[in-house]
Amino acid sequence: MSASTLGTSVPQVNARAKVMGRAQYAGDIQLPGMLHGKVLRSPYPHARIVRVDVSRALALPGVKAVATGADGPQVPWGVHHKERLTLARDVVRFAGEEVAAVAAATEEIARDALDLIEVEYEELPAILTPEEALDPDAPTVHSGRTDNVSHEIRFERGDVDAAFAQAHLVHEATYTTHSQYPGYMEPMASVAAIDPDGRLQVWTSTQSAFLVRARLAAVLELPVSRVRVIQATTGGGFGGKIIEDANSLIAGLLALRTGRPVRVVNNRLEDFLACATSVPERITLKLGMDRAGRIIAKDVRIVADCGAYSGLSAEVMHVSAMRSDNMHRNANVRSRATLVYTHTPPHGAFRGFGGTQMLFALNSHIDTMARQLDLDPLDVHRLNAIERGETSVHGWKIGSTGLVECLAQCAAAIGWHERRGRMARQGIRRRGIGLAAAMHVSGNRTIGDWDGSTVMLKVNEDGRVVLHCSEADMGQGAMTMLSQVVAHELDIPLAHVHVVAPDTDSAPFCIGSLASRVTIVAGNAAIVAAGAARDKLIEQAASMLQAPVAELQCAGGTVHLRAAPERGLTLAELARAHLWRHGGEGIQVTGSWDAATEMFDKNTLMGNIAPAYSFAAQAVEVEVDTETGQVTLVDSFVSDDCGKALNPQAVHGQSNGAAAQAIGWTLYERLQVEDGRIVNGNFADYTMPSPDALPMLRSGIVESNDPHGPYGAKGASETAILPGPGAIANAVFDAIGVRITELPITPEKVLAALRRREEPRHA
Amino acid sequence: MSASTLGTSVPQVNARAKVMGRAQYAGDIQLPGMLHGKVLRSPYPHARIVRVDVSRALALPGVKAVATGADGPQVPWGVHHKERLTLARDVVRFAGEEVAAVAAATEEIARDALDLIEVEYEELPAILTPEEALDPDAPTVHSGRTDNVSHEIRFERGDVDAAFAQAHLVHEATYTTHSQYPGYMEPMASVAAIDPDGRLQVWTSTQSAFLVRARLAAVLELPVSRVRVIQATTGGGFGGKIIEDANSLIAGLLALRTGRPVRVVNNRLEDFLACATSVPERITLKLGMDRAGRIIAKDVRIVADCGAYSGLSAEVMHVSAMRSDNMHRNANVRSRATLVYTHTPPHGAFRGFGGTQMLFALNSHIDTMARQLDLDPLDVHRLNAIERGETSVHGWKIGSTGLVECLAQCAAAIGWHERRGRMARQGIRRRGIGLAAAMHVSGNRTIGDWDGSTVMLKVNEDGRVVLHCSEADMGQGAMTMLSQVVAHELDIPLAHVHVVAPDTDSAPFCIGSLASRVTIVAGNAAIVAAGAARDKLIEQAASMLQAPVAELQCAGGTVHLRAAPERGLTLAELARAHLWRHGGEGIQVTGSWDAATEMFDKNTLMGNIAPAYSFAAQAVEVEVDTETGQVTLVDSFVSDDCGKALNPQAVHGQSNGAAAQAIGWTLYERLQVEDGRIVNGNFADYTMPSPDALPMLRSGIVESNDPHGPYGAKGASETAILPGPGAIANAVFDAIGVRITELPITPEKVLAALRRREEPRHA
Repeated sequence: MSASTLGTSVPQVNARAKVMGRAQYAGDIQLPGMLHGKVLRSPYPHARIVRVDVSRALALPGVKAVATGADGPQVPWGVHHKERLTLARDVVRFAGEEVAAVAAATEEIARDALDLIEVEYEELPAILTPEEALDPDAPTVHSGRTDNVSHEIRFERGDVDAAFAQAHLVHEATYTTHSQYPGYMEPMASVAAIDPDGRLQVWTSTQSAFLVRARLAAVLELPVSRVRVIQATTGGGFGGKIIEDANSLIAGLLALRTGRPVRVVNNRLEDFLACATSVPERITLKLGMDRAGRIIAKDVRIVADCGAYSGLSAEVMHVSAMRSDNMHRNANVRSRATLVYTHTPPHGAFRGFGGTQMLFALNSHIDTMARQLDLDPLDVHRLNAIERGETSVHGWKIGSTGLVECLAQCAAAIGWHERRGRMARQGIRRRGIGLAAAMHVSGNRTIGDWDGSTVMLKVNEDGRVVLHCSEADMGQGAMTMLSQVVAHELDIPLAHVHVVAPDTDSAPFCIGSLASRVTIVAGNAAIVAAGAARDKLIEQAASMLQAPVAELQCAGGTVHLRAAPERGLTLAELARAHLWRHGGEGIQVTGSWDAATEMFDKNTLMGNIAPAYSFAAQAVEVEVDTETGQVTLVDSFVSDDCGKALNPQAVHGQSNGAAAQAIGWTLYERLQVEDGRIVNGNFADYTMPSPDALPMLRSGIVESNDPHGPYGAKGASETAILPGPGAIANAVFDAIGVRITELPITPEKVLAALRRREEPRHA
Repeated sequence: MSASTLGTSVPQVNARAKVMGRAQYAGDIQLPGMLHGKVLRSPYPHARIVRVDVSRALALPGVKAVATGADGPQVPWGVHHKERLTLARDVVRFAGEEVAAVAAATEEIARDALDLIEVEYEELPAILTPEEALDPDAPTVHSGRTDNVSHEIRFERGDVDAAFAQAHLVHEATYTTHSQYPGYMEPMASVAAIDPDGRLQVWTSTQSAFLVRARLAAVLELPVSRVRVIQATTGGGFGGKIIEDANSLIAGLLALRTGRPVRVVNNRLEDFLACATSVPERITLKLGMDRAGRIIAKDVRIVADCGAYSGLSAEVMHVSAMRSDNMHRNANVRSRATLVYTHTPPHGAFRGFGGTQMLFALNSHIDTMARQLDLDPLDVHRLNAIERGETSVHGWKIGSTGLVECLAQCAAAIGWHERRGRMARQGIRRRGIGLAAAMHVSGNRTIGDWDGSTVMLKVNEDGRVVLHCSEADMGQGAMTMLSQVVAHELDIPLAHVHVVAPDTDSAPFCIGSLASRVTIVAGNAAIVAAGAARDKLIEQAASMLQAPVAELQCAGGTVHLRAAPERGLTLAELARAHLWRHGGEGIQVTGSWDAATEMFDKNTLMGNIAPAYSFAAQAVEVEVDTETGQVTLVDSFVSDDCGKALNPQAVHGQSNGAAAQAIGWTLYERLQVEDGRIVNGNFADYTMPSPDALPMLRSGIVESNDPHGPYGAKGASETAILPGPGAIANAVFDAIGVRITELPITPEKVLAALRRREEPRHA
């Protein structure tokens, strides 16, 4: 009788702490003598800082420190380019940029002190759009650069022009995608303190404790060993909490400056201003198909806007430019992608990581072309889909794919074959259905030619296990997954595994939760670690039972003879006996796993960057009110090929959450930036979909059993966000015959498009 | 140029945190919503609890919980016998026993609430002395027992009676030793809280985080994995903070009861009442010597008082009964030791652990007999001293001994040969010199047939090291020793090793700081762990430098070719390269070491329980005021054979602290228990020696280089307390010709003894 929960739906192991209000978010932490930090931000998208006078702020009772760019850290941070100071010096490059920081006895005093800091700005002309940025005569956002191009990607494989020449159908269109705010429930929050040894200790809401530690150490000029980062309970990340904001840096700076604990918790407006929103891209896509709908040529041009600092935007654009190529068998691909600086708030990592933008374009495009070829778009997706065992145009080795099954599942769920083309085309409210396909990675070698993970286990004297790992749980279920794997491997109850939150002092080094990597890399590391612990338990039993190792098994809470299960010892007995003996020690093991992937070649960009590739599809039904232009989602079914659903409830949760976020981006959410300033940085005006704006979301699971995945599993937190926008746009087209290529699909755009379509008739 | 600090005096690595006031003692911890716990104690040494009414206490605003024996934990605790409830139920057995505990919003409210708890006692006759306890008609302190004997030790080796018959000189005397309060600067203190997962988390002042965890789990009926114990900075232990008090149990109980953090900090009176003081023993010693002063027969009878609960007293008495036998070559030894229960506050572990009591008797005895044989006591000590390579009467294998050198060092320091017998014997103030010898263990297998330790190391990306180990630093310098060892092995600066305080969730299982075991067991484990880390660094370098491992060395912060030191890589480069590669992982290793000792046989008591044995000697000069009886220490030199002084300054600190504690016990400290009640539980009335009561203490180091010690080192925190009392008593005899056999040596006793000596003259 196995205790394993693998493949069954279990509540997340930290759910109780959260619903009981006992989980400690960074904003819940209270330390004796703790100060509160607040940040003064630039009101201008571009200005010279002429003078900063902090004397009045410093004189306010309760103010303990005021830091400015002049006296703040001089080491810039950033992923692709180290270009951003913690506090701006001399010049500000976006409205919202950090200019000064205050630590004070209360949050109110800190806020009041901000008003007393006198900053004299000389406003400068701002570059607010990529078009302006690319004007050869434009001034540069960053001095020392010859232009505003932050990063470029150029590649061609096969013979794209020749393939287009042979194509039966060529279609080109330009798609415009906008920026999305991550919208996690918990804004950025950190508490920094100086520990008794004088080291900097930071509790923070993050996806990666070790990346935060590395950046804090670099920017604050401390050895990494003089910094300790502990992941506080994290209320969502969605890419925005990798290391795309300055929150933990400012907390650390103020703690060093005052010698006291400092808490910096963004309010929602501050979070809109401080965080990296997703990268807006203008994508010009040209596809060539043969008569059967086979894609034979693809040309992609992207202009992406990273805002004032590049952050992870270059990597995001890289994904937009390349990843979708690997979904199809087409050998002729070409991309020219350009990332530009503007004087707008920085963009960066966001769930889907550039895939969402490109897949909106690609899925819209395939739908359009299938219709032109009088083909079923579903058939076109299936026809082009790469298959298991194939190597993609960029060298990716597809160990598993359930894309065709995902498409079939979605089609069945939405009634694709029965209803497509048979829906009423009259009346004010018209319905349509659409579908889309997507591909993502599970893991990614590109951070530093290592995509491994390490899990440390201790088997306690009661036979239960403590697990240390620094891959972050930010709500997606990493702790639950790790518990399930170890409980399965040792065949003990789930509750007998306790997962310790990431702590850089005690946990092994891990990269953290990004690129949908945790299930595959940490899941495999957990298998290795649990196996090492099991080996020790079995060896101990072998010596006590005088039996060969090969005749023993660890199951049901004991290690026993396979042939005589009653001859066994409990794990507790074994753990104690392993300790209390000659040459004894506690059972404490580590297990590491690194993906056998290949870093892409810097010149050719060929490689096999992920241990597994995930796929998803989505079908939706929309209702479009032709009088108001309002698009309402009536039904949605997203199907995720997660390899193997270790915890189906968690996969459905991720799929439905991803679908909601995709729907929000496609229909409702719109970061309004006017004259370079975010003007709707709150949840009243930035309209994330509330439950009443969503249908009862449905999701399905496809288990393609990846050969490299733990029990076949791949990541399940990002892929499902990818197909939604295309599916919705396609359904809108299906309903009213207009193609919206610029997101979001607002009533205004729908009405305008309807008018444009009708104008010729009335002309 | 080596960075090693081994053998050089370095400030303790946590000294800065302590002197800056940044170290976090348990009493410094503040948690949100934290309550304060206080304990109601029995005023009677023996009484029946007729009724407890907590209703008025519970009604006091701010009181959150009141626990009593009836509703408190029903699982008893104790080391040798599980016999003590956290809160007494039905009966109290000593004045000071815990009867009820309150958790309230403030310490003041908690204290007020104690006054509102109504306890109706029926006072019962109390057994206050071992003599009463051993009366065959005495009622038993513990029901279910047939007598008041808690533990007995009986052994005989050789033919003791025959040897006495052959002896040239036989001398018998009875020595009485009293109880000493440990007198650490920081009283017992704990903070307990329920963590977000519902586990019990306890920060406490302790010598052993894992023993505390085990006891908390057992008594509060939780799996050990549901309990996390973190050692707070600990301000001294001296044996009293192993697990001899209920402080952490009560904090844990109240936290579970209230669901809130609870801090329980003893004030000094509470600490006197709650802690275990040292075991008072009455020792009747009979020695037989040949003409040359060779000990040929030894008979020991001990009656020891454990108070109401036995705690570690049985183990302490075991040491008194056996350990000193191993110091000499005498093969004829016999002991009959009886531990009895009385209705007095419990006794237990104390620095020296029973050795102090016996060595007061033995050193007094040797001095007396040497004088009777007209021999120099120094020669008698040397004559009898066991030597390196010998196996003692109980089977102990003496790997090293510096006892003869210690004696010589002390003799030289005090001017033994020049001054002995030549000091003025007239006048009111007379001076005398005395010396004594001692033996102790470094490590002890008897806790559970394991005396090992495990150290975990992480090499960070800056080439610095984080060290996890759960052997406690309570001021003696464990953290510094571990840092020195690892810094030496990796040849990095001391400041590049950060030692994390014991935390049962992350540190490997260790027994803790007792039996002078940490330097030898954890020091060796640290060598193993550092070696494992070094191996990984060297292997990494070998692959990067394309050089054979054998040609590489780790020194000066790099791994380089022995033959070409300029061809090397820094540890930081290697640690990063070890991580960022195919199959990479952070460098994280554990190293374990277990002493190759033999647990004693339960029947014969033969064994070899410690990896090494430590020795010490002390010589003192006293001045005795024959009019007031006041004994003043004029000079003291204690010489410690610690094998190898890894940090001489720390060894001297331990030696001088031990000497001060010995002097206090011998001359000043006197726990006054009247009618079973401690009446001087404060530092005004319990007179520990202040600096003006002490001479400038001097100490010397003998390095006997133990073959099992790390770099030859043995423990250096307990041995030096052992010879002091005998040396002082011998010096008093030398000064005024009277032998005080009952400690402490108070002016009253000196005057009474002087009078007794003079009476015959005047008779």
